[in-house]
Parts: sequence; structure tokens; C-alpha cells
Amino acid sequence: SRSRGIHTVTMIPGDGIGPEISSAVMKIFEAAKAPIQWEERNVTAIKGPGGKWMIPPDAKESMDQSKIGLKGPLKTPIAAGHPSMNLLLRKTFDLYANVRPCVSIEGYKTPYTDVNLVTIRENTEGEYSGIEHVIVDGVVQSIKLITEDASRRIAEYAFEYARNNQRSSVTAVHKANIMRMSDGLFLRKCREVAETYKDIKFTEMYLDTVCLNMVQDPTQFDVLVMPNLYGDILSDLCAGLIGGLGVTPSGNIGANGVAIFESVHGTAPDIAGLDMANPTALLLSAVMMLRHMGLHEYGKKIETACFDTIRDKKVLTKDLGGNSKCSEFTADICRRVVDMD
Amino acid sequence: SRSRGIHTVTMIPGDGIGPEISSAVMKIFEAAKAPIQWEERNVTAIKGPGGKWMIPPDAKESMDQSKIGLKGPLKTPIAAGHPSMNLLLRKTFDLYANVRPCVSIEGYKTPYTDVNLVTIRENTEGEYSGIEHVIVDGVVQSIKLITEDASRRIAEYAFEYARNNQRSSVTAVHKANIMRMSDGLFLRKCREVAETYKDIKFTEMYLDTVCLNMVQDPTQFDVLVMPNLYGDILSDLCAGLIGGLGVTPSGNIGANGVAIFESVHGTAPDIAGLDMANPTALLLSAVMMLRHMGLHEYGKKIETACFDTIRDKKVLTKDLGGNSKCSEFTADICRRVVDMD
Ligand SMILES: CC(C)[C@H](C(=O)O)[C@@H](O)C(=O)O
Ligand SMILES: CC(C)[C@H](C(=O)O)[C@@H](O)C(=O)O
Repeated sequence: SRSRGIHTVTMIPGDGIGPEISSAVMKIFEAAKAPIQWEERNVTAIKGPGGKWMIPPDAKESMDQSKIGLKGPLKTPIAAGHPSMNLLLRKTFDLYANVRPCVSIEGYKTPYTDVNLVTIRENTEGEYSGIEHVIVDGVVQSIKLITEDASRRIAEYAFEYARNNQRSSVTAVHKANIMRMSDGLFLRKCREVAETYKDIKFTEMYLDTVCLNMVQDPTQFDVLVMPNLYGDILSDLCAGLIGGLGVTPSGNIGANGVAIFESVHGTAPDIAGLDMANPTALLLSAVMMLRHMGLHEYGKKIETACFDTIRDKKVLTKDLGGNSKCSEFTADICRRVVDMD
Repeated sequence: SRSRGIHTVTMIPGDGIGPEISSAVMKIFEAAKAPIQWEERNVTAIKGPGGKWMIPPDAKESMDQSKIGLKGPLKTPIAAGHPSMNLLLRKTFDLYANVRPCVSIEGYKTPYTDVNLVTIRENTEGEYSGIEHVIVDGVVQSIKLITEDASRRIAEYAFEYARNNQRSSVTAVHKANIMRMSDGLFLRKCREVAETYKDIKFTEMYLDTVCLNMVQDPTQFDVLVMPNLYGDILSDLCAGLIGGLGVTPSGNIGANGVAIFESVHGTAPDIAGLDMANPTALLLSAVMMLRHMGLHEYGKKIETACFDTIRDKKVLTKDLGGNSKCSEFTADICRRVVDMD
């Protein structure tokens, strides 16, 4: 069973503060005795045959074997013409669902309380098709591509996610009043899939209405599913509600169990190497990963320790409002994890 | 000069609560002795020659003459296949800029204070081109159209607006990291125009980053300019920050002084005719209109009276947290306007 034995996970530490926060996560996993063996890989894009950008073969092989990755921030773009590594990873492993739970963190004050929602973003097509043309000088077209298959797949993922995570409703976010055919197709697939999940409430809402309602009362939302660009926007908006990218986990999910979990904040080059970084986003992404792997107990233990440290307010990194170093914050979480045994 | 004599304005009362709130606005204008003569018109779309939807000729003629419209909410869509009247009006009069000032209202509590920004949305192209195709069964394309001319025009509008309204910065909102050609063109035009407005600070920001920063600290923003869909989203999001569509004014600006100001909330059919509606959004839109017409003093007087009534908290409609009727709220504003003389 997936929950027994030692599991290999590909660790992509990333750039800037990436190495510090991934080492923090590994320390906490060790303290928790999580049955994970890390395989560290770098994923700077290289040029393969035909000039196509690809991730280095040893990273690809590790992921192909382990199926599960944990990734710190990558600086992007590295140079002009260089692809976004995030996009390249999504593409390489067909990570079609970006999942971001946004849950208010006790003790970390924002204008909102009791936020508890999940954005599920279609990650492979839509406005990210990359197809653009100059029609005539001064007139440009970008193509938004929506397919039945990808729409059904993400809708199914959203409803499965809702069911498996004791969530009661799924809202499809769209602009089918404007993009009648493309968002219309997306919406139709959501409706069809909804028919087969009678235990989950289904609603539809315009993207602009969601944004308005979200900042007025985010507690009304549960699981939200949407095309690529809308997900890009809403997932960041929702992260803002609970304290920003420094505390928000993220998972990119593919078929057959393949997934990469990642912190979505930047590389923070200004504080890199200074033992000041906050590992929370990567740690909570790692907790998502544990749950994805069926290792719920370890996930719970680490998550509880992390939230306890934050609620306690005694050992916090600077961005969380404290004066402590990354290593001290990490040690406090480790101590709590050990104490739980 | 435009600020002397009597000005004719086309009044489109709209559906649902539209007639009540427009009559409230007219009463307040009368109390303020604003030099406006109203020409009431209905704009239910009709089918013209060749089956093309158009607004009724008498409404079109009135607008062509007066150049200025004030519009309540319209129910949309009226029937399947019926066009959005909002879109039809924007198109008919080439109203290329949607302008929404979002300013915190003293005494009306939201999670944010000191919001004071303006979203300026390109209103004619982008994701609203209406061009869509089925490529093969199950594969749909929507076309986002960005032109040099429309991008330059909206950028110029934004910088002119900033200069004329004592605002110090303009931020271009884009996803040129993803839509390199289309948003790239939009951004290039903004940069070019920025070069000619050295007195206004120019910055660029990704849409997702704007959304995240907006909910964390909206006070950092001033004037924001962006393509159509991004404006649809951000303008509603920002309205949410200051209390929703019931208190947010909006203006649609065209060339040669043509403009339609409107409340962007719905028709609220459940309370229509019950003297319960809140006329604030339409009234503040009418204040924007007065400023657009150069009638600043009347604008200031009415705006002050409205904000005083809200701050005072004694006579508020239900949605604003009070128990008063629309007519009582209106009378309170009228009284203040008269007292100012
Ligand atoms: C880095 C960038 C390409 C990416 C996106 O636009 O999808 C980012 O904003 C994200 O959400 O992962
Ligand atoms: C009614 C609808 C067509 C419209 C839009 O999407 O532009 C509305 O949301 C708006 O912002 O005016």
C-alpha cells in the first residue's frame, strides 16, 4: 500500500531562498520520522535536440520514477527567450490541475477570518495556449483554447477532490456570457460532471462576481474550479486573503498519481543565504504532498506543529511579524513534532 | 463654455429599481439647481435592418445630440439571443474607456480604509472581441484581439485622467509573460505613452500580482489601466473593497465628449417599486458626469451631501445598514444640498 514503506520524493530546492527552505522542510520531515527519502535534483532548463527547451534528464528520470516532486522557488525568466520553468514542468509532466487550499491561519492576522476554500485551476490550456499571431501591423490575436477533454478532466478532478476532502460544494467560475463558446464548453462539461456527483452542490458564477463576493465575504466559497487564467488570478487573490504567498501551499496534479507540490512565492534573492526565509509555504505544500501520498498522519502532525508555532507567536520569521531566524522557526516546529510522539 | 447654460442629458432609467433611483437622482439635482435638463429614453434593444440588434432610434438620437447619458440598471439578457444592452451601448457610441473610481466611504465600514484608486478598462476589444470558432468537435478557440490604436488610446486616456485628476501614478496591468504578443503590444503602448507624461509615475504589474497586492493593501494603488477582461475583473474586485456595486460609480467614455455614466449593480427586481432601493451608485455616477461636463461645483455639492448622509448614519437604506426608505434617504440628501446654499 502507498502508505507503507519508504517513499522516494524528488526534491527540487530551487533558487534564492530555495535551498534554505527545502532544508528546513527536510529537517522537519526527519523530526517527524516521515517515511520519505529525498532525491535532490536541479531543474534549470536545457536545450535539447532541435533547440527545444527541456528539463535536465536526471531530474526528469527522478520524477518519472518517484512520481512525486517538492519544489522551491525558481528564478524565472533566467534570460531572454528562456522558458518559465513552472510552465515547462507543468507541460513535461502534464500536471493538469493546480490546487491551492486557502485556509485562514490562526494567529496570523489578515482582514479576513474563517477563509476555507480551495481553488482548482485548469493548468494546460486556455489563455496559456501560447498561440498568438500578428494579423496585420498593429493588430494581434491571442488564442484561448478550450477543449472538451481538458474541461471534463478538471471538472472531474474538482468533484473528486471535493468528495475526498469532505467539501460540500463546487463553483464553476467563468465568463460564458462573453466567451460563449469557449467558457460555454468549459461550463457545459462542469454541469455534466456535476450530474454524476449528486452529493456535491454545484453552482456557477461569473468571474467578476466571484472577485467581488470574494473580497466581501470569502467564507461563502468552498471548492472553485476554473480555466487557466482565471485560476492564475483567483488563486493569487485568495492567497492574499489569508496572508500571501509565504503561507499558501500549492499542488500541481497530473494523471496516475504524478504531482509536484511547490511554494509559489519568489526566490527572495535579497535575503537568500541569510537564514531569514520563511519555510511555511513549502512546508504546507509538503503537507499537501503527504496527504496526496496517503500519509495523512504525518501530514497532520507536521501541519499542527507548524500552525502551533505560528499561533504561539514566540518564534516567528520576520515576514510573519517576528524576529527569529529560519533555523529557529524550523527548530521550534521540529520540537513540537517530536513532542507529539 | 460647457459650464454655463442648461445642458441636456439623456436619462436611461432602466429596469427594476432603475426608475426609482433615477427619479431620486433627478430630485437631488433639482434641489442642487444643477443646470441639467433630462431627456428620458428607454433602450430596450430592437432588431434593425438585416436583423442586427440596435438601440431604439429615439434613444440614439437623444444621445447623439446630448452626448451625455446617465443610465440605471438594465435587465440582461432579456431573452435568449438578446444582446447585452451594456455591450451594445459601449459599441454604438464607441465608449472605449470604462472608468471606476473606488474611494472608501467614511462611515461605511468594510475590511479596508483609505482606498482611493481608479480602474481604467479598455472597453472595446481584447477578450470581448466576440470572435470564436469550433476547430473540431470538442475544441474551441476564443480570440483576444489587441490593437495598437485601442491600446494607445486607452493608455493616453489613463495618463490624461491621472493628470487632470491630480493623481500621481499609472500602473499597467497585464499578463505579457504569458500573452507576449497581445499583452506585450498593450504594454508597449503604455510604455510609449508614459514617456510623454513625465509628471506621472508609470509602473507595470502582472494581473495576478495586482490581485494579491490589492487584497493585502489597496492603498498602494492609484490609477490602473488594463485590457478589457482584466478591467472587468479588477473593477468589480475594487468595488468590493469599498462596499460593493451599490456605492460604486462608473463612467463609459468615448471620443469627442461622448459618455454614459451608470450604476453597475443589478435591477434588484425583488425590491423594485417598494421604495427600498439605494440610489448612491447612480448618484455618484451622476456626480462623475457633472465633473466630466465641467460642472465641478455641483458635483462637489451633491457628493458632499451624499457622503454626509452616509457618514451621519441616521437616514440609510437597508443595504447600507439602515431602516429608511429610498425617498427618505433622497430627502435627507436634498435637505443637505439646499442647506449648503
Ligand atoms: C510564473 C507564471 C508563468 C505563472 C503563471 O502565470 O501561471 C505564475 O503566475 C503561477 O501562477 O504559477
Ligand atoms: C454585463 C456584462 C456583459 C459586463 C461585462 O462583462 O463587461 C459586466 O460585467 C460589466 O462589467 O459591465
